[in-house]
Amino acid sequence: MQQSEKVLFRTARKEDVPAIVAMLADDHLGAAREGDPGDERYLAAFERVDGNPYDELIVAELDGEVVGTMQLTYLAGLSRLGAERCQIEAVRVAAAARGQGLGGRMIEWAIDRARERGCAIVQLTSDKSRTDAHRFYDNLGFTASHEGYKLSLS
Amino acid sequence: MQQSEKVLFRTARKEDVPAIVAMLADDHLGAAREGDPGDERYLAAFERVDGNPYDELIVAELDGEVVGTMQLTYLAGLSRLGAERCQIEAVRVAAAARGQGLGGRMIEWAIDRARERGCAIVQLTSDKSRTDAHRFYDNLGFTASHEGYKLSLS
Repeated sequence: MQQSEKVLFRTARKEDVPAIVAMLADDHLGAAREGDPGDERYLAAFERVDGNPYDELIVAELDGEVVGTMQLTYLAGLSRLGAERCQIEAVRVAAAARGQGLGGRMIEWAIDRARERGCAIVQLTSDKSRTDAHRFYDNLGFTASHEGYKLSLS
Repeated sequence: MQQSEKVLFRTARKEDVPAIVAMLADDHLGAAREGDPGDERYLAAFERVDGNPYDELIVAELDGEVVGTMQLTYLAGLSRLGAERCQIEAVRVAAAARGQGLGGRMIEWAIDRARERGCAIVQLTSDKSRTDAHRFYDNLGFTASHEGYKLSLS
């Protein structure tokens, strides 16, 4: 894991959008639902995320290349004495950088960041077909305590 | 279901906070994690939700009484061509109003609202111990396609 020493985590910039979309699409579930990285809808979504103080789109950079991404959203609500939650979505590692522990470092980084903010919970959902990911989240201390329901409107 | 004709759905106001907290606490899971409805942390969380254009804290009102609550959050992200998602959290029906279909009407109202906004997906998680709730979401057309992971930081 020499490589992991050089990984930089930072907020995504507009010019990272094509690399992020490429990672979202390079996936057995994402392949069917993503489009041209130059599609203006991706840029519009980036602008909204970038302009929201409760959203952080993160990239992992290695030797100047974007090799990982995840989005953190800080959710407010009355539950649990008005606790803030950190929700992690859209976690991806570039194919060439897989199998080297980068995903684990990303999630650990997110957990540290949530703890620093005072979040009470970190939460995420993972498609039931992603069995490798489940072992990964179990090993990081997460509990699969909930059913994750989705209803597609499109 | 005569009652259901008179139910009004509206955005929560500051003065609804104690009634909402009472519903959150009147629950086998909520009882252990909620506190005094007058705790200032609930009001602080309300102010943040109320001030966020992507959050809607909703109450169901029947004959002037708050009998249900849920929070809708409109999440942006690059996934699925930059689609917006509607996330539902903290769904509760007051004990006295249960068993009359109010929960179903609330979720249907949320789905309609998400569709009007152009959301691609409605999503929520439900504790695996809430087996009644699972039949309820299945019947409303949701698919339990994901594992819902939580990591408590407190």
